[in-house]
Amino acid sequence: MEGDPSLRLRIFDLNCWAIRYLSKRRQERIGLIGDTLRREDFDLVLLQEVWSEQDYSDLKAKLGGCYPFSHYFRSGVIGSGLCVFSRFPILDTLLYQYSLNGYPYMLQHGDWFCGKSVGLGGCQHGGHSHFAPRFLQLHAEYCREKDAYLPHRLVQAWELAQFIRHTSKAADVVLLGGDLNMHPEDVGIRLLRGWTGLQDAFAEASRFEGCENGCTLVPKNCFTLQTELLPFPLGIRIDYILYKAISSFTVKCEELKTTTGTAPGMDIPFSDHEAVMATLHIQRQGQAGGATLSSAEPMLVDIVTEARTEVGVGLRAAQRQRYSAGRMAVLALLLLLVQATAALGALAGLAPEQPFPKLSFSLLAFLAVGVLLLATGLHLFHTMEVKMLQGTEEQMRMALRALQEHP
Amino acid sequence: MEGDPSLRLRIFDLNCWAIRYLSKRRQERIGLIGDTLRREDFDLVLLQEVWSEQDYSDLKAKLGGCYPFSHYFRSGVIGSGLCVFSRFPILDTLLYQYSLNGYPYMLQHGDWFCGKSVGLGGCQHGGHSHFAPRFLQLHAEYCREKDAYLPHRLVQAWELAQFIRHTSKAADVVLLGGDLNMHPEDVGIRLLRGWTGLQDAFAEASRFEGCENGCTLVPKNCFTLQTELLPFPLGIRIDYILYKAISSFTVKCEELKTTTGTAPGMDIPFSDHEAVMATLHIQRQGQAGGATLSSAEPMLVDIVTEARTEVGVGLRAAQRQRYSAGRMAVLALLLLLVQATAALGALAGLAPEQPFPKLSFSLLAFLAVGVLLLATGLHLFHTMEVKMLQGTEEQMRMALRALQEHP
Repeated sequence: MEGDPSLRLRIFDLNCWAIRYLSKRRQERIGLIGDTLRREDFDLVLLQEVWSEQDYSDLKAKLGGCYPFSHYFRSGVIGSGLCVFSRFPILDTLLYQYSLNGYPYMLQHGDWFCGKSVGLGGCQHGGHSHFAPRFLQLHAEYCREKDAYLPHRLVQAWELAQFIRHTSKAADVVLLGGDLNMHPEDVGIRLLRGWTGLQDAFAEASRFEGCENGCTLVPKNCFTLQTELLPFPLGIRIDYILYKAISSFTVKCEELKTTTGTAPGMDIPFSDHEAVMATLHIQRQGQAGGATLSSAEPMLVDIVTEARTEVGVGLRAAQRQRYSAGRMAVLALLLLLVQATAALGALAGLAPEQPFPKLSFSLLAFLAVGVLLLATGLHLFHTMEVKMLQGTEEQMRMALRALQEHP
Repeated sequence: MEGDPSLRLRIFDLNCWAIRYLSKRRQERIGLIGDTLRREDFDLVLLQEVWSEQDYSDLKAKLGGCYPFSHYFRSGVIGSGLCVFSRFPILDTLLYQYSLNGYPYMLQHGDWFCGKSVGLGGCQHGGHSHFAPRFLQLHAEYCREKDAYLPHRLVQAWELAQFIRHTSKAADVVLLGGDLNMHPEDVGIRLLRGWTGLQDAFAEASRFEGCENGCTLVPKNCFTLQTELLPFPLGIRIDYILYKAISSFTVKCEELKTTTGTAPGMDIPFSDHEAVMATLHIQRQGQAGGATLSSAEPMLVDIVTEARTEVGVGLRAAQRQRYSAGRMAVLALLLLLVQATAALGALAGLAPEQPFPKLSFSLLAFLAVGVLLLATGLHLFHTMEVKMLQGTEEQMRMALRALQEHP
């Protein structure tokens, strides 16, 4: 850094798994994370699943000295769980919620309470007057819902990619960190990387140290659900640091590290996820590095086409489910009407004797009301799902046309 | 346009008030809007409150010849109501939902069904290879809820402004059209304009033709609620076309028109709102026109401070309401517990005689359950409101610091 226009940027990313009353040894772990961050002195710290604002305040009080700038992204009843600590001033922030983030009927899925959002912050490195790259730091978290199927993930990956494309032009360097809940070879990750031009710090790193294959959910971490990792004896990699230089800068990943099942020098881990730590080397260059995207364009057409096919499959499934739910609701309503007619008939004395035993008659009515409510809720849910999938498919179609027309 | 690098852009903006089964003479008006748009040949058409996708499809079928590119922004169960027709290719789109857009408990407010979102589309004028400005067109609609008070509007104005700041850097020209549901002198509009640098087409227009003061809700329109406009005999201006040149372009508003209570040459209006039509003249220039914002900066500090004060007032009101609702819920719960104890006591034969008449006892319990549910819902609502207002206040504080530190 002595005089030459370059900068070493150290980033820390962690899904903290800090759910009040639910996460094991939460306060102890938050304390440990704070101590480590204070000792290590990173430039930028991206934390996910810090659900309690009290935990954020504790961290902020502890880290105020070395990370004078911080932000907690507020949204919904519980918040987004996203927060950032920075050595550089955070100039402004924006929170984007994925369109999936709004199915309040599906309370059991917890969608509404999960951090399905991406937080954006603009920072500026103000050390040198002639070298002050503007950073756009984003961090995202995907809900760990069990039943989210591929098309849903693709819609989110697409929305995240579109959001990054639309917001990144004001920055010199874009950084994305977070728990993306997708494996590196998943079409969602390929779509996100291909459509934004972001590079994977693990793949690009000159030096790597940590869990094999850069995994961030590993069996040797005592908080992971061992049964979930049975098919993956080495673990899985779902936490990422991605980066991209926008204007006349180049970014290289010098080093990537992960924790390995425990916090350094301790016997408990920070979280059920491993932390990801990257050291990036940022330099000013004469020419913008726009070659990556254009050379990858034919491949990009394939990725978008693959994603669009998957979204189409999901769309047809959602349309079928919407139809089934609607039909079920209509049947339940018909049953109720028949029962009401029979009951009114019996009351008016038209029927010579009571046609059904009272108890089973009431139980049947109760059941019909339940089915009607459930089926109507499902119908509404799948209507939103269909609209969302249709919207994404149309956007992908638009993107493919643009890719093919302007090669 | 003959050879010189300039472009005349004609924009049409209208809140269509097209709610199925509710809006008067909807189909007739949609037909009329389609006919006019086909005849007039604008470059960009921004429509709000097109709630039925069927209406959009009808318009699309009619307008396909003169506006080959169009997009309907899908979201939620009903959609956003926003659609755009364009002579230029729409390269990509993004829908941003305000954070207020997610209070499903408050179904009676209709928040969830209102178009509290902003749609963004990137277009490119591809006529000349040496003159192809990229447009960012946004259009927004604010819910017409009666009880939305000033701090809520300010949060939305701030989110809209932040979204525009973060997404506009990729464009040469930013256009914002829509029903902002704020008067020109409202602090929300001043905040939006000041913080983004957007200019008001009505204020800047060289020629104006239409309702006095550019009003777009006028008493002579037969669909407006006359009682609402009693304090404003000329009407109010709440529909806007705003614009801004980002890079080496200049934009001037040559002409602004509004309809005047009826569609041109007809006896019925397009909608309960008047349409706004602007002709912009876009020219390439050597130097970026960044002077507007910096010269207005001291005033901007005042506007943001004023807005922040208002948000603070709203925050304290919301905190009081959250506290009251929480207290009410606790009281209702206590009453229920007392009743349950009394009922159990009576059942167990501990009380010598029945202490209350059965009917009033049950009614009281019923009332307590109702109050408990309502108060809990209100408490959750105000918790979200507090978080949202806190978040906005913090962002405004951050913005003020940045404004004061980098003058």
